[in-house]
Amino acid sequence: MAQPPPAAPDGIWHWEDINPGDVVELGRSVMTKDELLAFGRTYDPQPAHVDEAAAKESMFGQLFASGWHSCCLLMRQMVDGLLNKSASLGAGGIEEVRFMKPVFVGDELMGKATCKGKRALASKPDVGTVHLLMELSNQRGEAVLAWECHQFLRRRHRGAPA
Amino acid sequence: MAQPPPAAPDGIWHWEDINPGDVVELGRSVMTKDELLAFGRTYDPQPAHVDEAAAKESMFGQLFASGWHSCCLLMRQMVDGLLNKSASLGAGGIEEVRFMKPVFVGDELMGKATCKGKRALASKPDVGTVHLLMELSNQRGEAVLAWECHQFLRRRHRGAPA
Repeated sequence: MAQPPPAAPDGIWHWEDINPGDVVELGRSVMTKDELLAFGRTYDPQPAHVDEAAAKESMFGQLFASGWHSCCLLMRQMVDGLLNKSASLGAGGIEEVRFMKPVFVGDELMGKATCKGKRALASKPDVGTVHLLMELSNQRGEAVLAWECHQFLRRRHRGAPA
Repeated sequence: MAQPPPAAPDGIWHWEDINPGDVVELGRSVMTKDELLAFGRTYDPQPAHVDEAAAKESMFGQLFASGWHSCCLLMRQMVDGLLNKSASLGAGGIEEVRFMKPVFVGDELMGKATCKGKRALASKPDVGTVHLLMELSNQRGEAVLAWECHQFLRRRHRGAPA
C-alpha cells in the first residue's frame, strides 16, 4: 500500500530513504480570490485570471487560476512537505506539466508526491535522483494538475566508484 | 531570417498568422532581490531562495531565484508580448521545462517565442495549435530557461470539416 518513506535516522530524507511506490501526502491550500487575482496581475494577466467581468465571458464562465499559479501552490506544498525535509540538491527541469481541470476561487487543493523510480549517479557517488510524479487534486477528488521531475538527493552512503 | 508574424488584419494574431520559423522577441525583466525573496517566501521557501546567509553556503554561493519564478517571469512576458495580442485559448500543459543556468539578483532576462510547428484540429474546425519553444536568456547571452507548449489559437477562417 502507498505510504510515506520511513523516518530518516537523522530526520532528513536522503536518496536511500525514498523508494519506488512511496507516497508523500503534502499539504492543503485554498485558492482565494485575492491570491488568484494578485498572481494573475503579476505573472499571467490574461483576462480570465484578472478581470471578473471578462472571466464571465471566458471558457469556464468565471475567474480561474493561472496554470502556473497552481504549479506554484503545489511547489510550496512540495517544499514544506518533502524538499525542506530532505537533502535535496534541486532538479534540472520539469517534465509533462498537465493542466487537467481549472482551479476556481474557493477550491481546496491537496498535493501528493509519488516516487516512480530512482537512479544512482555514476558521475557523482554522493548523489542520486528520484523520479517523482507530483499531483494536485481538488475537494471533488478531481486531478487538476500533474508534473514529473527527477529530483537530486544527497546519498547518506557514497556509492562505489563507477 | 527569424522575424515576428506579420501584423494581423484586425490587430489580433490568429492561428493563420503564426507560422513555423516565426520568432517573437518578448520583453525584458530585471530580477530584483525583493521580488526574488517575496516569490521564494510565498511559493518556494528553500533556503537558497529565501535566506541570504544560507544561500552563501548553497550550490551557487548566493541567493538564486526559484526556477518556477523564472517560469513566471517568462510567462508574464509571453502574455504581454504574444498571448494578449492573440486569439489564445490556452494550453493543456507545458513540456520539458529546462533550468539551464541560475538566475541571480540583478539579472536582466529577455524572453523569446519561436514557432516550431502548427496543426489544425480535426475535431474543432475553428481552432488550431501552434507549437512554441519559449526561451529566457540573461544579459550575458546565456540561456537560463526553456519550455515548449502547444498553444490553442482561434482560426480566422474555419477549416473544412474533417
